[in-house]
Amino acid sequence: MRPYVFVNCAMSADGKISTIERRQVKISGKDDFDRVDRIKAGTDGIMVGIGTVLADNPSLTVKSADRKAERSASGRDENPVRIVVDSMARTPADADILVKGSGRRIIAVSAAAPADRVNTLRNRAEVIVLGERSVDLTALMDALGERGIGRLMVEGGGTLIWGLFAAGLVDEFRTYIGSVVIGGSAAPTPVDGEGFFRESDFPRLSLKGIERIDDGVLLTWSVEK
Amino acid sequence: MRPYVFVNCAMSADGKISTIERRQVKISGKDDFDRVDRIKAGTDGIMVGIGTVLADNPSLTVKSADRKAERSASGRDENPVRIVVDSMARTPADADILVKGSGRRIIAVSAAAPADRVNTLRNRAEVIVLGERSVDLTALMDALGERGIGRLMVEGGGTLIWGLFAAGLVDEFRTYIGSVVIGGSAAPTPVDGEGFFRESDFPRLSLKGIERIDDGVLLTWSVEK
Ligand SMILES: NC(=O)c1ccc[n+]([C@@H]2O[C@H](COP(=O)([O-])OP(=O)(O)OC[C@H]3O[C@@H](n4cnc5c(N)ncnc54)[C@H](OP(=O)(O)O)[C@@H]3O)[C@@H](O)[C@H]2O)c1
Ligand SMILES: NC(=O)c1ccc[n+]([C@@H]2O[C@H](COP(=O)([O-])OP(=O)(O)OC[C@H]3O[C@@H](n4cnc5c(N)ncnc54)[C@H](OP(=O)(O)O)[C@@H]3O)[C@@H](O)[C@H]2O)c1
Repeated sequence: MRPYVFVNCAMSADGKISTIERRQVKISGKDDFDRVDRIKAGTDGIMVGIGTVLADNPSLTVKSADRKAERSASGRDENPVRIVVDSMARTPADADILVKGSGRRIIAVSAAAPADRVNTLRNRAEVIVLGERSVDLTALMDALGERGIGRLMVEGGGTLIWGLFAAGLVDEFRTYIGSVVIGGSAAPTPVDGEGFFRESDFPRLSLKGIERIDDGVLLTWSVEK
Repeated sequence: MRPYVFVNCAMSADGKISTIERRQVKISGKDDFDRVDRIKAGTDGIMVGIGTVLADNPSLTVKSADRKAERSASGRDENPVRIVVDSMARTPADADILVKGSGRRIIAVSAAAPADRVNTLRNRAEVIVLGERSVDLTALMDALGERGIGRLMVEGGGTLIWGLFAAGLVDEFRTYIGSVVIGGSAAPTPVDGEGFFRESDFPRLSLKGIERIDDGVLLTWSVEK
């Protein structure tokens, strides 16, 4: 019943998804931008963590008019369901994800989220309460499955992706590797959080695809279960 | 006069070169191990930072008997010159890099290194003093060039590689990307240190090669100057 979960993110050649100041940077080019738009248009849901909403304020909408029209023609919303993982309901009421484009939004919060913030967000999104202090990601995937989400794309950031790997919820991991070096021991990476300590705990991957795009390369890995 | 500097390191699919505890982990396999030995045998010098010496205690010797014999037959030492970047002369006198295998060793220290430590190390290596508090990497490259080192391989870790990128000293950047996820916002990455803040400061790369090895992929980038 849980969705097929694939992560798609862009990193520098040294494994960074933004600078140490968490400033959004251009890692890929036009062709990769189009690839991301295409796969976004092919999903039922697209998810980010609250860290990404606060840092980048993404709208997560489909950009191509043709793809939006195609989705509409097949009876779907123009945009996939947009989902924020946000334990304390900190998503700003005027965040682009809530105000730009049409379609459903889901904010997943925890039981610790302040009631007034939750009520404000209920005006603009479905709010699902799961977990005590932080969002229970396994329960969230069940809830998304129940709501008909079969394919879920996760854009980031590294803390959310860590939570998903730690819970064994990732099916596929795609990284576009761009032709820059960002550096920084404190710069965000595709999988942050606590990290795995023991080699026996490392998620094992299997390389499914290598594709040159723009000045970089897209690696597609499936996660062994 | 400076050597051609190429970095060669192994990272997980999420851009980590070890765990958050800095424990050395198996990222590549047999074929990549052999590739690294081959390119090591083809270099004049091989360099690591003191962090790597203390964490991993590598010997940095050529492993294949055939390759050692070939080097000897052509009048070279069995092993490339082994170089440690170590401002405070903290390299243990019994470190594998100093006691295993034949050939020259160079320890680059700063003027702040304690004289007794420097004297101990002089029994086992050439000690070069460059820079006030930390090693001046540009001056070090000049010194290595003067000593006949034409090709220099840098194995890591991320702090030293950052210092080299920040000083504009890297010519080529090779990353073997293995089929595991390590995670951890504090785990070492190929380029750590302070990091570049501005996009205009990012070193720009050009993708020269993509090669499947073992269960992962080797990317070879040249650094645009
Ligand atoms: N290059 C790319 O492809 C790309 C894509 C996306 C983002 N980014 C970058 O990533 C950075 C943001 O990443 P981030 O790591 O700071 O934030 P994030 O992963 O977007 O969000 C993490 C937050 O989600 C919340 N969360 C709730 N339950 C969770 C759970 N069970 N597991 C994990 N997280 C949970 C936590 O905040 P609460 O405790 O408040 O809930 C957590 O701090 C930005 O710099 C952005 O530019 C890059
Ligand atoms: N997977 C791989 O391919 C691979 C390869 C190598 C290492 N590693 C991992 O990397 C980790 C160690 O990396 P690390 O970053 O801690 O240490 P490192 O890069 O090996 O050494 C860094 C140290 O070099 C010294 N240094 C002196 N002058 C410098 C300068 N101008 N610029 C930069 N550094 C200078 C500094 O110490 P002082 O101030 O004391 O001089 C600095 O802390 C270990 O976990 C190891 O397992 C992985």
